[in-house]
Amino acid sequence: MIPRYSRPDMVAIWSPETKFRIWYEIEAHACDAMADLGVIPRENAEAVWKAKDVEFDVDRIDEIERETKHDVIAFLTHLAEHVGSDEARFVHQGMTSSDVLDTCFNVQLTRAADILIKDIEGLLAALKTRAYEHKDTVRIGRSHGIHAEPTTMGLTFARFYAEMDRNLSRMRDARAEIATGAISGAVGTFANIDPAVEEHVCDKLGLVPEPISTQVIPRDRHAAFFATLGVIASSIENVATEIRHMQRTEVLEAAEFFSMGQKGSSAMPHKKNPVLTENLTGLARLVRMAVIPAMENVALWHERDISHSSVERNIGPDTTITLDFALARLTGVIEKLLVYPQHMLDNMNKFPGLVMSQRVLLALTQAGVSREDAYRLVQRNAMKVWDQRTDFREELLADEEVRAALSEDEINEKFDLGYHTKHVDTIFARVFGEG
Amino acid sequence: MIPRYSRPDMVAIWSPETKFRIWYEIEAHACDAMADLGVIPRENAEAVWKAKDVEFDVDRIDEIERETKHDVIAFLTHLAEHVGSDEARFVHQGMTSSDVLDTCFNVQLTRAADILIKDIEGLLAALKTRAYEHKDTVRIGRSHGIHAEPTTMGLTFARFYAEMDRNLSRMRDARAEIATGAISGAVGTFANIDPAVEEHVCDKLGLVPEPISTQVIPRDRHAAFFATLGVIASSIENVATEIRHMQRTEVLEAAEFFSMGQKGSSAMPHKKNPVLTENLTGLARLVRMAVIPAMENVALWHERDISHSSVERNIGPDTTITLDFALARLTGVIEKLLVYPQHMLDNMNKFPGLVMSQRVLLALTQAGVSREDAYRLVQRNAMKVWDQRTDFREELLADEEVRAALSEDEINEKFDLGYHTKHVDTIFARVFGEG
Amino acid sequence: MIPRYSRPDMVAIWSPETKFRIWYEIEAHACDAMADLGVIPRENAEAVWKAKDVEFDVDRIDEIERETKHDVIAFLTHLAEHVGSDEARFVHQGMTSSDVLDTCFNVQLTRAADILIKDIEGLLAALKTRAYEHKDTVRIGRSHGIHAEPTTMGLTFARFYAEMDRNLSRMRDARAEIATGAISGAVGTFANIDPAVEEHVCDKLGLVPEPISTQVIPRDRHAAFFATLGVIASSIENVATEIRHMQRTEVLEAAEFFSMGQKGSSAMPHKKNPVLTENLTGLARLVRMAVIPAMENVALWHERDISHSSVERNIGPDTTITLDFALARLTGVIEKLLVYPQHMLDNMNKFPGLVMSQRVLLALTQAGVSREDAYRLVQRNAMKVWDQRTDFREELLADEEVRAALSEDEINEKFDLGYHTKHVDTIFARVFGEG
Amino acid sequence: MIPRYSRPDMVAIWSPETKFRIWYEIEAHACDAMADLGVIPRENAEAVWKAKDVEFDVDRIDEIERETKHDVIAFLTHLAEHVGSDEARFVHQGMTSSDVLDTCFNVQLTRAADILIKDIEGLLAALKTRAYEHKDTVRIGRSHGIHAEPTTMGLTFARFYAEMDRNLSRMRDARAEIATGAISGAVGTFANIDPAVEEHVCDKLGLVPEPISTQVIPRDRHAAFFATLGVIASSIENVATEIRHMQRTEVLEAAEFFSMGQKGSSAMPHKKNPVLTENLTGLARLVRMAVIPAMENVALWHERDISHSSVERNIGPDTTITLDFALARLTGVIEKLLVYPQHMLDNMNKFPGLVMSQRVLLALTQAGVSREDAYRLVQRNAMKVWDQRTDFREELLADEEVRAALSEDEINEKFDLGYHTKHVDTIFARVFGEG
Repeated sequence: MIPRYSRPDMVAIWSPETKFRIWYEIEAHACDAMADLGVIPRENAEAVWKAKDVEFDVDRIDEIERETKHDVIAFLTHLAEHVGSDEARFVHQGMTSSDVLDTCFNVQLTRAADILIKDIEGLLAALKTRAYEHKDTVRIGRSHGIHAEPTTMGLTFARFYAEMDRNLSRMRDARAEIATGAISGAVGTFANIDPAVEEHVCDKLGLVPEPISTQVIPRDRHAAFFATLGVIASSIENVATEIRHMQRTEVLEAAEFFSMGQKGSSAMPHKKNPVLTENLTGLARLVRMAVIPAMENVALWHERDISHSSVERNIGPDTTITLDFALARLTGVIEKLLVYPQHMLDNMNKFPGLVMSQRVLLALTQAGVSREDAYRLVQRNAMKVWDQRTDFREELLADEEVRAALSEDEINEKFDLGYHTKHVDTIFARVFGEG
Repeated sequence: MIPRYSRPDMVAIWSPETKFRIWYEIEAHACDAMADLGVIPRENAEAVWKAKDVEFDVDRIDEIERETKHDVIAFLTHLAEHVGSDEARFVHQGMTSSDVLDTCFNVQLTRAADILIKDIEGLLAALKTRAYEHKDTVRIGRSHGIHAEPTTMGLTFARFYAEMDRNLSRMRDARAEIATGAISGAVGTFANIDPAVEEHVCDKLGLVPEPISTQVIPRDRHAAFFATLGVIASSIENVATEIRHMQRTEVLEAAEFFSMGQKGSSAMPHKKNPVLTENLTGLARLVRMAVIPAMENVALWHERDISHSSVERNIGPDTTITLDFALARLTGVIEKLLVYPQHMLDNMNKFPGLVMSQRVLLALTQAGVSREDAYRLVQRNAMKVWDQRTDFREELLADEEVRAALSEDEINEKFDLGYHTKHVDTIFARVFGEG
Repeated sequence: MIPRYSRPDMVAIWSPETKFRIWYEIEAHACDAMADLGVIPRENAEAVWKAKDVEFDVDRIDEIERETKHDVIAFLTHLAEHVGSDEARFVHQGMTSSDVLDTCFNVQLTRAADILIKDIEGLLAALKTRAYEHKDTVRIGRSHGIHAEPTTMGLTFARFYAEMDRNLSRMRDARAEIATGAISGAVGTFANIDPAVEEHVCDKLGLVPEPISTQVIPRDRHAAFFATLGVIASSIENVATEIRHMQRTEVLEAAEFFSMGQKGSSAMPHKKNPVLTENLTGLARLVRMAVIPAMENVALWHERDISHSSVERNIGPDTTITLDFALARLTGVIEKLLVYPQHMLDNMNKFPGLVMSQRVLLALTQAGVSREDAYRLVQRNAMKVWDQRTDFREELLADEEVRAALSEDEINEKFDLGYHTKHVDTIFARVFGEG
Repeated sequence: MIPRYSRPDMVAIWSPETKFRIWYEIEAHACDAMADLGVIPRENAEAVWKAKDVEFDVDRIDEIERETKHDVIAFLTHLAEHVGSDEARFVHQGMTSSDVLDTCFNVQLTRAADILIKDIEGLLAALKTRAYEHKDTVRIGRSHGIHAEPTTMGLTFARFYAEMDRNLSRMRDARAEIATGAISGAVGTFANIDPAVEEHVCDKLGLVPEPISTQVIPRDRHAAFFATLGVIASSIENVATEIRHMQRTEVLEAAEFFSMGQKGSSAMPHKKNPVLTENLTGLARLVRMAVIPAMENVALWHERDISHSSVERNIGPDTTITLDFALARLTGVIEKLLVYPQHMLDNMNKFPGLVMSQRVLLALTQAGVSREDAYRLVQRNAMKVWDQRTDFREELLADEEVRAALSEDEINEKFDLGYHTKHVDTIFARVFGEG
């Protein structure tokens, strides 16, 4: 986790304080359930709640861990310092450390997912606003970086909206994947702890009991979760790449907002760089790099080994913090993006009329010319425009073979821009579910 | 794709013949829809169906492609050779190559998904059978490769079942992710083709129209699809790792079936190696390696570039073929797995009684000993068993501090195996939804 | 491996025929060495060479393997069919399959490396030619896609040359990494085979004996090898990305050669797309995706497990074939690249004079203006040029604060292009080791 | 970076204080060189050294950066606060931020490499000590987890030594890859700064001038660097996996040192888990996950974009800190590893005599039995030992077909352990270069 690419709410989820607080709640709720079952005395369960408002001392717990080399035992020892070692003696009874660690980790991931879901919703709102704003702002569509046919800036925003909307749905699924808890004991047999304890703790923490756990919650869930973050990050890269292209000097159809006092370059005062979206491109790689380790974590030895743990200590906070930051940054970029409609028109006309080549091709075939001949005729005139920057319409009008098939009027009407935007409303209705 | 790790049905999906057949259907259905709209003459649409039973000549298409350097144009040229170049002249009208390529690719992925779904269902059936067969076959649970507490072989099969059942659900979601088609023209504006054509073609091919496409179907869908395959592959590795461990000479609690005439080693005739599950471990890596490229494919330039194409030409067939093979291989391994219950008991008793240490710990704390003291007492006796392979129960009975808290009977009753299996039925009910 | 992205020489290295030929040579040379040591009769060693010119029957070997489920045993059985089963009975004596498989794999990788080295050398030659051709072709340097300061096209080719020259060196190191062989028996102890056999076989095959092997040659070597291919692929992507940018319609400073008869788009006849370099971008991902599996292959269980094998059956051929193809394709692209110097000048002047902002900044600070003030003055005028496309030099001349520090002549001389190219010769001398 | 997996020396390299110190040195040395060239006044260069012993105020620099949104400008502003803004006005003249950032990053990576090199040397020393200690400690070699033939524990340590020795060599190469600096100005043309400045700064910082840079040092160097770290991490996983296997309860041929006061499990006091090597397995994944992003960083747009930066801010510190920690941890594990020679013999004899099957096979073929028949005879008896745990030697003595070829003495002599260790000295001489 890099502080400059982080936001406080997500960071807080991963603080030691939050972790110990969740551990505490798991243990305390488990005691309640055991008292309900008559397995431990009610007063011991109640005693644990004495620590309800305690801020656990992270340094003290670390100190104990240095001796015991076991984090959960260190915490329990510290808890006993608050609750009283006699009162605390039934805490954690029949449980294994992983019951606490894994359930806590999933609580943290679930909370992180909740923030990410909100982030995506915010991004969707921004994209929708800009999409409607530029629904009819014509610009050239490009395939292979080469001018193809006209489209609109609104459609660009709309497709990013649709993609992020799928990501919202994936993120919700991912949240469900890891919203489970397990309090099933040493190897998952409930030998020393009743399944009712698991049910009670999960209920209190907003989780579903894991149907079958070993010592750990199965890691295919986490693999699916981090894979989803990787997909979302890749979509962020997709949007970022579009903006970086739009801002390049020769294109300049849009630009990231550039604040007063900002310096684009220490050496070149004229520079306004798309550094936010370039940064997002890098952040996407950081989120994505967690996917394979998360998948390598699935195959644990027998009922568990601890190889997954160091990986998760890193990727748990790092990817959620980075993705949260990236989504928020992208939302800001979208909201404040400077859009230059006139430049869009200027760019489209760089090779006058060329982008209408398909319409002419279709008109020629409709007029009875074979597809092969039509293609040859259009390509012949298009290449002149490429080479000499002449006007495509004029070239066609001057081409006798073309004129044998199409009249002047028929040629001229192929250069109407409205032709390409006639289905924008249809597409918007598909994407936004409205007119 | 490696022939030795492939099965014919999945391979067939990716043959050139299948691909051209799907291309043909897309073009023919599109002509029908255009005729319905009155955009092209009905007889031209009907003429295309003349090629309905044609086996397209792959070599001939390749030959044309070498000249045109464009695969779809090569196909259309060849189609015209069958249909007649005049009759064929409206084929592909208003469409772009990607309309055909992307829709075809998704048809192939959808069919591949159908096979994979059946594969997982087959694996689930095998796992369930073996789970019930060994529901009560006691063996030691292990964390960190170290004996922990007793569990049953049935629970092991049951947890693989639950994991694969989640994978079944993920695979169905992944299928839905890519069961879309697009016939939206050059940059997705439907400028030269009516949305009704897309709807008709998708309907005929069992797809849903992509709400908004550019020149291509957005690649976040494919990223999510291949990520899912990666998760499933990781689960396969998980099961494979368990079996490899069970078969190692010192453990030998299970073994892959070893057929007559099979040779484990050219040099050492005594060898029976878990080569199938080792192989599955490698195949998992092969499937997983497609995940990152699929995510890198998401960020295309503007309305598309073709960087994704070579990646998909590889990972489309390779990962689905490999995963299909792996699922089938694993199913066979599970069905025929040799299980050795007596070895399980022998292993569990390697350090007699040691695996009951938690029960004794709990009994001591229940008897009023502090958790710290109880831990120390149990660990002290356990270490003797590790070092001298004595009997844990006897050590406890001889320990005066232990005996001050627990009677002989109380100690003895802690060594009853049934204690650890009492919730097996509960867990089975959770996993299989039955008693 | 995708046939369309392959070249025959590299493909031939990975054919079954080549593999069996290498296996044969290993076995035959091993017999010679054993005969030299007096371990087996000389006539049996000589008998093996009877098969010297045999084309081994791949189908027959496959057939035997289907029965024995062991590829090396299948080959040896087939070899005995040629040599005579009595004469062949000492073949493979004391060896293990991996002695053959691993040594063969490294022979194949070494040969593949030789081709790749030649490929890089060819690419270097092309880059050098184009670098000198365009040594003084001025174009704008860009950071963040934004015009920065002038550079030359020759420097662009030269930096790709330098990068590929490093790759040449890395590739040679990678070749050395895997040019080892092992004939050390079941677990690498030479229990049943003398180290002299290993030395003889390696010597004959152009390999170095592996200092210590287990049943296998250690896989850190292969991890380093495939990682190197991944780095080279990434450099290919780097060059490809530059060309894709240069060809985009708004930039058009260079373009892939477009052959007669080629069709850029089935729908839009005007299109000339950078499809080769886009393809190279995808191929780079394919090569790179082998890196992690190759690293996962390093940790084998004890003296070996076979999890690496299926991975290598795929990535061995696939990555070397793909990289060979990509290097050759890139070489062709570079050799035939269309370069448009006039467009370069046109682009540079899109915002007239703006790219000289740093020179003016430096002149102001040299003239005694504080850095902060100088920056502010330059940025102020630069922003006018961005917004209104005025001429930067004229804005400066009209800015009184600027004129207070710099005279008209001093301002004018800052707009001399030669200023930026004065060290081109120095850099070329560094890169090419000549003037 | 996770504090619990870090060591202070490596962490210090990546502190903001260290970074600003290096920035300062680059700027100060550059001023010297510019003064030497007469480009700036000598007194201004000397003034910069006034800050020689200043501890730069990280908070203050951060505060300035929040305004300027540019880290190098923030630093230079702060530097001017120490040096005097008039005196400081030539600092950074003609340079670009990347000259500072990239050169600094490579200084940090080079220092990190120095630590990693020492780490590997320490690990090699530990491995060598243990190798000689257990040169003749016989244990069973295993392929596929199945007993194969005897080897020695010393050979296991020796092969890890050889692998790490290769890693030492790779690490030195990787250090050379990134020990370059660049002070070449905005797009690498030295337009505003003389190449002599670069030479001077690099010389002072122990770097080599980058032959050709753009705005940045080419990232193929960093890709190769991080790939090397990934290979080393994979070797760590290899060693860790061996130890984890050796410690599992059924094998118990070695164990990580278990300190007094340590608790293996909060629930099961009898547990001694190989948690350090499991942890190393996870850490290996963390190091490895940086490889692909580092490769994705190679393809920057034109003369640079900043997408690589956020990636490197993470993987620069994280992978070097993690790998440093992992190497040190592994060294400790090796130094203190508990080795149990008697358990090794016990395990080898689990299936008495079985591991000699190859010797018997060879003896049979030497005695004139065909390879196929010999294999069948040996396998037949071996399977009895597997199934009934009888003694292999006795089974052979009782097999009439075997006895027809081999006498009792001939059979008995095949069960001598010394046979398998006769070349240990030879292998040690190869690995350690001594007797």
